[in-house]
Amino acid sequence: MGILRLSHTDITAPDLDLAAAYYTEVLGLDLTERADDRLFLRGWDEPDHHCLTVRFDPRVGIDRVAFKLEHESDLEVFEQRLESAGCAVSRIGDGEEVGQGESIRFEAPSGHEIELVHDVHKVPGRLPLVNPPPYPEGLRGIAPPRSDHVLLLAEEVGEVSRFFMDVLDFGLTEQILSGAGHQIAAFLQRSGRPHDVAFVQGVSGGLHHVSFWVDDWDHVRRAADVLAFNGIPVDIGPTRHGITRGNTIYFFDPMGTRNEVFTGGYRADPDFPTITWTEDNLGRAIFYYEGKDNGRFLTVHT
Amino acid sequence: MGILRLSHTDITAPDLDLAAAYYTEVLGLDLTERADDRLFLRGWDEPDHHCLTVRFDPRVGIDRVAFKLEHESDLEVFEQRLESAGCAVSRIGDGEEVGQGESIRFEAPSGHEIELVHDVHKVPGRLPLVNPPPYPEGLRGIAPPRSDHVLLLAEEVGEVSRFFMDVLDFGLTEQILSGAGHQIAAFLQRSGRPHDVAFVQGVSGGLHHVSFWVDDWDHVRRAADVLAFNGIPVDIGPTRHGITRGNTIYFFDPMGTRNEVFTGGYRADPDFPTITWTEDNLGRAIFYYEGKDNGRFLTVHT
Amino acid sequence: MGILRLSHTDITAPDLDLAAAYYTEVLGLDLTERADDRLFLRGWDEPDHHCLTVRFDPRVGIDRVAFKLEHESDLEVFEQRLESAGCAVSRIGDGEEVGQGESIRFEAPSGHEIELVHDVHKVPGRLPLVNPPPYPEGLRGIAPPRSDHVLLLAEEVGEVSRFFMDVLDFGLTEQILSGAGHQIAAFLQRSGRPHDVAFVQGVSGGLHHVSFWVDDWDHVRRAADVLAFNGIPVDIGPTRHGITRGNTIYFFDPMGTRNEVFTGGYRADPDFPTITWTEDNLGRAIFYYEGKDNGRFLTVHT
Amino acid sequence: MGILRLSHTDITAPDLDLAAAYYTEVLGLDLTERADDRLFLRGWDEPDHHCLTVRFDPRVGIDRVAFKLEHESDLEVFEQRLESAGCAVSRIGDGEEVGQGESIRFEAPSGHEIELVHDVHKVPGRLPLVNPPPYPEGLRGIAPPRSDHVLLLAEEVGEVSRFFMDVLDFGLTEQILSGAGHQIAAFLQRSGRPHDVAFVQGVSGGLHHVSFWVDDWDHVRRAADVLAFNGIPVDIGPTRHGITRGNTIYFFDPMGTRNEVFTGGYRADPDFPTITWTEDNLGRAIFYYEGKDNGRFLTVHT
Repeated sequence: MGILRLSHTDITAPDLDLAAAYYTEVLGLDLTERADDRLFLRGWDEPDHHCLTVRFDPRVGIDRVAFKLEHESDLEVFEQRLESAGCAVSRIGDGEEVGQGESIRFEAPSGHEIELVHDVHKVPGRLPLVNPPPYPEGLRGIAPPRSDHVLLLAEEVGEVSRFFMDVLDFGLTEQILSGAGHQIAAFLQRSGRPHDVAFVQGVSGGLHHVSFWVDDWDHVRRAADVLAFNGIPVDIGPTRHGITRGNTIYFFDPMGTRNEVFTGGYRADPDFPTITWTEDNLGRAIFYYEGKDNGRFLTVHT
Repeated sequence: MGILRLSHTDITAPDLDLAAAYYTEVLGLDLTERADDRLFLRGWDEPDHHCLTVRFDPRVGIDRVAFKLEHESDLEVFEQRLESAGCAVSRIGDGEEVGQGESIRFEAPSGHEIELVHDVHKVPGRLPLVNPPPYPEGLRGIAPPRSDHVLLLAEEVGEVSRFFMDVLDFGLTEQILSGAGHQIAAFLQRSGRPHDVAFVQGVSGGLHHVSFWVDDWDHVRRAADVLAFNGIPVDIGPTRHGITRGNTIYFFDPMGTRNEVFTGGYRADPDFPTITWTEDNLGRAIFYYEGKDNGRFLTVHT
Repeated sequence: MGILRLSHTDITAPDLDLAAAYYTEVLGLDLTERADDRLFLRGWDEPDHHCLTVRFDPRVGIDRVAFKLEHESDLEVFEQRLESAGCAVSRIGDGEEVGQGESIRFEAPSGHEIELVHDVHKVPGRLPLVNPPPYPEGLRGIAPPRSDHVLLLAEEVGEVSRFFMDVLDFGLTEQILSGAGHQIAAFLQRSGRPHDVAFVQGVSGGLHHVSFWVDDWDHVRRAADVLAFNGIPVDIGPTRHGITRGNTIYFFDPMGTRNEVFTGGYRADPDFPTITWTEDNLGRAIFYYEGKDNGRFLTVHT
Repeated sequence: MGILRLSHTDITAPDLDLAAAYYTEVLGLDLTERADDRLFLRGWDEPDHHCLTVRFDPRVGIDRVAFKLEHESDLEVFEQRLESAGCAVSRIGDGEEVGQGESIRFEAPSGHEIELVHDVHKVPGRLPLVNPPPYPEGLRGIAPPRSDHVLLLAEEVGEVSRFFMDVLDFGLTEQILSGAGHQIAAFLQRSGRPHDVAFVQGVSGGLHHVSFWVDDWDHVRRAADVLAFNGIPVDIGPTRHGITRGNTIYFFDPMGTRNEVFTGGYRADPDFPTITWTEDNLGRAIFYYEGKDNGRFLTVHT
C-alpha cells in the first residue's frame, strides 16, 4: 500500500500552442487531451492519461506534483496521517479534474502543492496488448516512454525530506551534506528507482526540472541530436551524474521550464543504504564528468 | 509489505572449483563465502550476502528459489496464507543457513521448493557509501551488477501462475496462450520489472535459466565478447525478446546450467495490463529477431 | 591512382516492385532512378548515383561487381594490365549505362564479371553542403549511409585473390587456410577498411551477400528491430565476426539475395600484415560468438 | 603513392614520469620505448613503433607532426616538390631517429615542422596474427586502438590549407568561412577519413589537440568515466561535432596538452565535395549540441 511512483507534474506556460508543439514534436510525448486552458501529455509507454500537464498562465511555473497511490483506500490513510502531521488536506472529488478520479492535496514543508491520486484514467496505448512489437512505429522527437522524476527546490531540504520519509514513507537513497552537516540535497524514492522526487536547496516552491526516462546511452545521444536539430538550448550534457550514476542531458523548453532525459541508475530496495556526498564533492556529485556546476544549473529554475 | 523481489537461486553442480572459477572469472560475480560444499555469490552492486548459491551434487540441478520479504513479520503472514492454501510450510531457524536469518520453505504447485526470507546478511560492497564512483575498478568478466530473474518449468503453468498471483501477490505481466487458450508460459513480477520469476511448460521442478542484469545493449555485446574469449558455448543471442522487449544473451555454465544476461524492459506497476502472446507468435515472443526457437531453447534445461 | 573502393553491385530479381519496396522501405536506400527493367539505389550519404542496381530477371543472381577508379586515366592503365594478364576486356562507352560514364569489364578467375569505372554521376544528396546536420530527417527503415563490401564465391579462392592482388593492387587483410594450407577464404581491400571484396570457396560466379555500413552496434540492433517488425527472415546475428572484428546481422531480401549490415573493424594501411585463420577456427572466424556456422551461411547463396 | 595518414605527433612536456603514467594508465597507450629524454607511445592496434612521442622540455609544446608515406620513393618526390614550392627540406638519415628510418622535414606556412616518413619500425602487437580475438585482454584506461588526427593553429589558415592541398595532395573535407569569406578553419584528409590534420585560426606554430580514435559512442562514455575516475579535467564533452559529425570528448593531459577521443564521421573519397560552415554557425560547427564554444576551446592551446 502507499505511494507507487510519480504520477504527474502540473506546470504552467504562457503559450499553450508553443508548448503543444514542443512537447509533442520535440520531446515527443502524446497529447491525450487538450482542455481550454490545459494540455494533458504522456509518454508512449504509459497507460495513464497524463504524466505532465501544462496550464496556461502568464507566468512559467509549477502548480503541483502528483504521486500515484496503489489503492483507493490509501487516500483516507494519508488524509489522516497528513492531518495528524498538521497538514491541511483538501479533497478533490471525482470529476473535478480532467482525466482522473478523486485525490487529496496538501502543501509540503517546501511550499509545493502535492497531490495523491489513485485513479488516473487509462487511455489506450500505442502498442496492442496482444503480440506487440517492442516499440511503436512513427514516434517523433525524443519520444521517452515515460516520465521519471521531478526535482524541486526547498529552503530547508532536511525538513521536507524528513516529511517525505516520515509521512509519505519515501526512502532516502542519496543526500548531499554541507560542510556543517546540513542536508542541502535529498533524493527520495518509492518505486525502487534512484529517485521519484528530489529536493535541492533554493527558493521554496520552485521547480528545478521535470525528468523523462529513456532506455540507454545511445538514446541520450539521439535526444541531443533532436534538440540540436530543433535549436533547443541544451543546459548541460550528455553527461553522467555521480548521484544516481545515471546518464543525462538537460535542456529548456521554449517557455523556460528545464527538462531532463535520464537513463541508468540502480535499483533501490527499501533497505537500500543511503549514499552521502560531501559538499567538497558537490561538483562531481551533480556532474561526474565535468566535476563542477556549469554556473547555471544551481541558479536557474522556474 | 510482501515479496520485494528475487533473493537468490540455489543450484547444484558436480565441480565446485570449476563453478567458482566460472562464476567469478567469466560471469564475474563476487564470491562472498565458500562453505564446505557450497559457494555463495552475488553481483557487485548487491548489498546482500548471495544472489546465487552453488551446492556440490553429482547432479546438475536446482535446490530452490528464494524471494525476499519486505518485513520480518511477513514470514508469519505468508506462513498462514500458505497453510490456508494447503501448503506444508517449514521454518528454517536463524543460524541454520549460511548468510541469512529465519525463513520459510514450501513446495509450489510446479514442484519447486520456494523460500521466503527477510534477513539476508549485508556484506560490505565494492563501492563506498560516501562519494562513490559509478562503478568499481577491477571488475572481471561480464560483471553483472545484480541478478534479475529465474525461469522455471511447470507441467501446469496456469496452476502455478495462479498460485503465485493468489497466494504470493505476484502480478502477471505477460503470458503465452496455446491455440486452445491454455497458458503455456507466464511472467510474474513483484519488483516493478517485467519479471522476477517466470514459468514455461515442461517437466515440473526443472530450471530453465538464471538471469543476471546488465545496464545496456553494449554490455550485452561485451558479455558476448567475454563468453567467446573464454570458449563458453552461447545458446542464443545477442538478441531481443518479444516478451519483456529485453535484450539478451543465453549461455551455459561449464556444468550445464543455462545463464542469461538481460537488459531493458519496461516498468510494471500493480495495474500493469497483462500482455498476451498467441501460440502462432511463439517464436517472435521468445526471440523477436529470429522469430523462432533455436531447437534447444525449449527442450534443454536442468 | 587505382581502385578506390567498391562502386556498386548489380543483382537480379524476378519482381522489381517488391525489390523497390524492400530496398527503399525496409533496407532504406534511396531510389535515385528507375529504368524500364532496373532499379538504381544508394545509401543516404553516398554522392554517387548508385551503389546497388537490381535488374529484372526471372532468376535471382548477380550481373557484376563494379569498383571505382580514382582517375579517368586508370581505365587505360587497367585495360592494358588486364590484357597482359590474359583477360579479355570490353569497353562500355559513355552513355551506354545509366548513371555512369565510360567503364571497362572483364571476367575474374572466379567467373564474376568485374567492372572498373571512374565517372559515376553525382546526385544531390539529402544533406546540404552548407551547415549540414549530422544526418537527414525522415529516414526510413535501416537506412545505411552507404554500401560497404561484397562477398563472392570462387572454386579456387587462392587463384582469384592472387589475381586481385597482382593485377588490381588489392591488399590481403585476412585469409582462412584449410588444414592442407589451401586458401578457402580471402578478404581484400583498397579503401583502408577490412574488406571491399572477399571470396569464399564455393560455386564460381556465385554471390554470398551484399553488405551495407552502419555506424555502430546500436544501429545493428535497430536494423534487427526493423527486420523483425517487417517480418524479414534473419539469417544470423546480431553477432560479431572474428574476421574483421566487425559487428553484423545477415538477412535475406524477399527475392532471396542475402544482405548484411556491418559496422566496426580496423583500418588497413597498405602495409597491414595479413591475419590468418586456421580451418579448426573456422567457426569462430566467421561468427565469433556462436563459434560455428548456422548450417546455412556456408551453403546458401545466389 | 603519397601520404597515407598521420604517422605521429611529437610533443614536449616538463615531466616525463608524469607523462608516462598518464599516457599509459589513463589514456592507455602502449609505451614501446623510453629513451633518455623521450617517450614513444602507440595505440594497441597500431603496428608502428609510435603514434605519439613526448620529449622532455621545460615548456609544454609541439616539436612536429609526421605523416606516413606509402613508398620509400615518395621521400624524393616530395623533397623535390617542396623545394619547388620554396620550402627548405632537411633529410633525417636512417638511424638518426629512434624507431624509424629516413625522413624529410620542412616548415609549413603555419610555422609547424612537418615530417614525412615511410619506414616506421614495426613492433609486435598485442594480438596474434593467427586466430586473434577482437581485442586484447588487460587493456588499461581509455585504450584507444590508434591515433586519429591533429589540430594545429595558423594565422593564415587559407595559406596553409592551400599548401597542404597543392603540395601534399590533401583533400579539403570541410571549412569554416568568416563573414568576409576568409577561411578560418580547414579540415584536410589523405586517409579517407574526415581529417588527418586540421587548422584553425590562431597563433602560428600552436597545437590545439592530439586526437585518438575509439570505436563507438559507448566507448566515449567509458573514456569519460575513466577521466572522471582519475580526476582528469574534461574540456568539453561527451558531445558531437557538426564538422565531421563525430562524437567526441576533450580533456587535458596533466602537463596541459589537450587530448581528444573521437569516433564516427564519414568516409571521404578523393572526390568528396567540401562542406562549408558559415561563421554564424561556428558554434554548431564545433559543438553541435552546445551550439557554442565553451569560452576555452578557441583560446587555450599549447
